[in-house]
Amino acid sequence: MSEVRIIDLKANVLEDNEVLAAKTRERLKNENTFLLNLMSAPGSGKTTTLTRLIETLKDEMKIAVMEADIDSDVDTKRILEAGAASVQLHTGGMCHLDADMTCQGLDSLPSKDYDLVVLENVGNLVCPAEFDTGSSKNAMILSVPEGDDKPLKYPLMFQVADAVIINKIDVMPYFDFDLEKAKKNIEMRHPGIPVFPICAKTGEGVKELADWLRSEIKNA
Amino acid sequence: MSEVRIIDLKANVLEDNEVLAAKTRERLKNENTFLLNLMSAPGSGKTTTLTRLIETLKDEMKIAVMEADIDSDVDTKRILEAGAASVQLHTGGMCHLDADMTCQGLDSLPSKDYDLVVLENVGNLVCPAEFDTGSSKNAMILSVPEGDDKPLKYPLMFQVADAVIINKIDVMPYFDFDLEKAKKNIEMRHPGIPVFPICAKTGEGVKELADWLRSEIKNA
Repeated sequence: MSEVRIIDLKANVLEDNEVLAAKTRERLKNENTFLLNLMSAPGSGKTTTLTRLIETLKDEMKIAVMEADIDSDVDTKRILEAGAASVQLHTGGMCHLDADMTCQGLDSLPSKDYDLVVLENVGNLVCPAEFDTGSSKNAMILSVPEGDDKPLKYPLMFQVADAVIINKIDVMPYFDFDLEKAKKNIEMRHPGIPVFPICAKTGEGVKELADWLRSEIKNA
Repeated sequence: MSEVRIIDLKANVLEDNEVLAAKTRERLKNENTFLLNLMSAPGSGKTTTLTRLIETLKDEMKIAVMEADIDSDVDTKRILEAGAASVQLHTGGMCHLDADMTCQGLDSLPSKDYDLVVLENVGNLVCPAEFDTGSSKNAMILSVPEGDDKPLKYPLMFQVADAVIINKIDVMPYFDFDLEKAKKNIEMRHPGIPVFPICAKTGEGVKELADWLRSEIKNA
């Protein structure tokens, strides 16, 4: 058993929701609303990162967050406390959001009342990457404890992201996480993509991330 | 055309899967092979935990691991080094394994040559919980950096698991992770389920986990 044997299993055909996603992007443009789709594995720090971004940007723009969760409303409460509007989208067991679910969320806010809407997607590095939500831009979080090899294992997520946030850099000394190796693996999957090492807990690096987001909103 | 017809595709797919899963469990019983389905979020330490279990159990039983990965073969190499047989199942973008894919893996080993086969499922806390693989038992890993609130957010995973492994307990001082709160949240989702706090990196707590697995294999 010294050889690595590989069996390729058949992939299911995924539903195409590109038409609705394109329409949603058009709608958002007309409304002057920027939609950021934030994705990551469970527990990578999406909500804590968002509360930091809200603190930094809330005096410049009107912000709302759509919290996609299978169950519970713990994240929504934290976002409201941080000073942004928030709506909870219960996915009923779904592993991702598609363009239709995103539209329902945008309608309920409604999105035209906001400059920035963030979709906090379901914690999952696989399925959310396969469905275009209609967002203006996608960002993803890779947290230090997950390991620097994640771009090798979840290629599509790193390919569809427009920015990678590396969170929990404060605990780097306690994990076998090589920041340069992580950056190299990310660059291999998505050449030229901006990478933001941050610590959402302390706020380190959040300014650079907020600068990127502000500039993307301006140029949308 | 006055009637609304609803075709529940997901229900049909799940029903077909259940039939094959039940058949697979029967087959494994006849072969005297125990199949453990190991699930977790990305980067929770599935492979490191498995290498520890293999070290502990390899002199008592013949072990093989089926590595489900969207891409790459980094985990398969580590399992081979630990001293177990290993086969890589490339899921072609799929977010979970179902009973059919699992059967393909069992055939390729073949499973009858082993006492214990472990299916290292795709790193995902959502979809793998929905598909019965035909395994004898399910175990899941929750790692400390993910947070003690995960049972609130991913209920089904904790419901279908037969044991919960809490990994990376060595870094507990650096995270807001309350072990008692985590245990209470797990117990709420799945009363009476055994919980094993471990550090796969150092081997702490692995003996108790191996004892549980040995006893499950014996009583299968």
